[in-house]
Amino acid sequence: MMRSATLAATRASFVMLLAIRSTATILFFMKYCSECAHPVSFIVPPDDNRPRYVCTHCGAIHYQNPKMVIGSIPVWESDGHISVLLCKRAIEPRHGYWTLPAGFMENNETTEQAAIRETVEEAGANIALQPLFSLLNVPQVHQVHLFYRATLLDLDYMAGTESLEVAMFRESEIPWHDIAFPTVSHTLKLFFSDHEKVRRGGTYGFHTQDIMKSLRQMEPG
Amino acid sequence: MMRSATLAATRASFVMLLAIRSTATILFFMKYCSECAHPVSFIVPPDDNRPRYVCTHCGAIHYQNPKMVIGSIPVWESDGHISVLLCKRAIEPRHGYWTLPAGFMENNETTEQAAIRETVEEAGANIALQPLFSLLNVPQVHQVHLFYRATLLDLDYMAGTESLEVAMFRESEIPWHDIAFPTVSHTLKLFFSDHEKVRRGGTYGFHTQDIMKSLRQMEPG
Repeated sequence: MMRSATLAATRASFVMLLAIRSTATILFFMKYCSECAHPVSFIVPPDDNRPRYVCTHCGAIHYQNPKMVIGSIPVWESDGHISVLLCKRAIEPRHGYWTLPAGFMENNETTEQAAIRETVEEAGANIALQPLFSLLNVPQVHQVHLFYRATLLDLDYMAGTESLEVAMFRESEIPWHDIAFPTVSHTLKLFFSDHEKVRRGGTYGFHTQDIMKSLRQMEPG
Repeated sequence: MMRSATLAATRASFVMLLAIRSTATILFFMKYCSECAHPVSFIVPPDDNRPRYVCTHCGAIHYQNPKMVIGSIPVWESDGHISVLLCKRAIEPRHGYWTLPAGFMENNETTEQAAIRETVEEAGANIALQPLFSLLNVPQVHQVHLFYRATLLDLDYMAGTESLEVAMFRESEIPWHDIAFPTVSHTLKLFFSDHEKVRRGGTYGFHTQDIMKSLRQMEPG
């Protein structure tokens, strides 16, 4: 275990180095074994059917699997009109574009906990989580995005460190051309469509969709 | 790029080494940076709020996130009765126990493709995939399990390399005490319960559940 002082010094020494890296960096490529530091090979392991990063020295197989991006659709209803909370991204990729609060699910948490945590971190918003609304596959970047419906409990939101600003939008005000990711615009369109059905006595659905577009448009963070 | 002969020789040389490892091994711990081979530290990176494996030499942050396990509920209907296909596991963990066909989602595929692939690989079964049926969080092992309903197109199934045998079970025949993982038994119970509702004119639902149990019971593969 490192002592606190050593740890602080170590952290400070590479802040500059890290500054050029986005926290959303996805490490697809691997050079060395994380268990024994020998160079890895990209080959099909025995009894497998696809290439993996494997270490011929210690035998470790380094599997790489899709990551989950979890978010919420925070809704405020007033005078019969609804508004949705969006965050303007302060980080790459898609700096300056608008998104629903969302981010990579962490170990040791549930999908619901991830949705609430990301909403607090990015928008400082207090929500009551509703059922899961959408699941979107983005195979090009090895991601699955989930969005939960959510009810805003108050309007005391505040931009977190990864947001430039946070604001409420009615459907007619959504900046469709400045939405950060296709999974967000698809989810918003499905949500407003379902909301119209709910107004007429219907119910919200659960939607799944596969998004197949260019890498540049796909990268979330 | 390695030439085929070299690759084959390399593979052969460490088959024995790999034999003692399950393909389901989950590498939670990391000793060396996979980009530069220097030892990593487990510390909170700048502008982050939880410890990660970070390299103070090259600045790489090695994020670890939950993995998705995707499977299907393959159903055969005959004379008004339904049977569900289960696989007896030929691998650890839970060797010899019964499971729905399922496994880790791979990069470059969608959740639907993963469900079909796993059903083919583990049970050699031809299915028509139906809507997503369950999402189960297993935070202790950093996993999210998804199960799709599926219709068996024929009974020409056959145990794959990870299955000792594959068999059809009516609800009364399910080996409840020999089910490999809680996510499978929960999904089966929810499925038979919903099927009863469908027989009475209802519809199948989409179910989410968090499973909080001991690690030993949780480890899927």
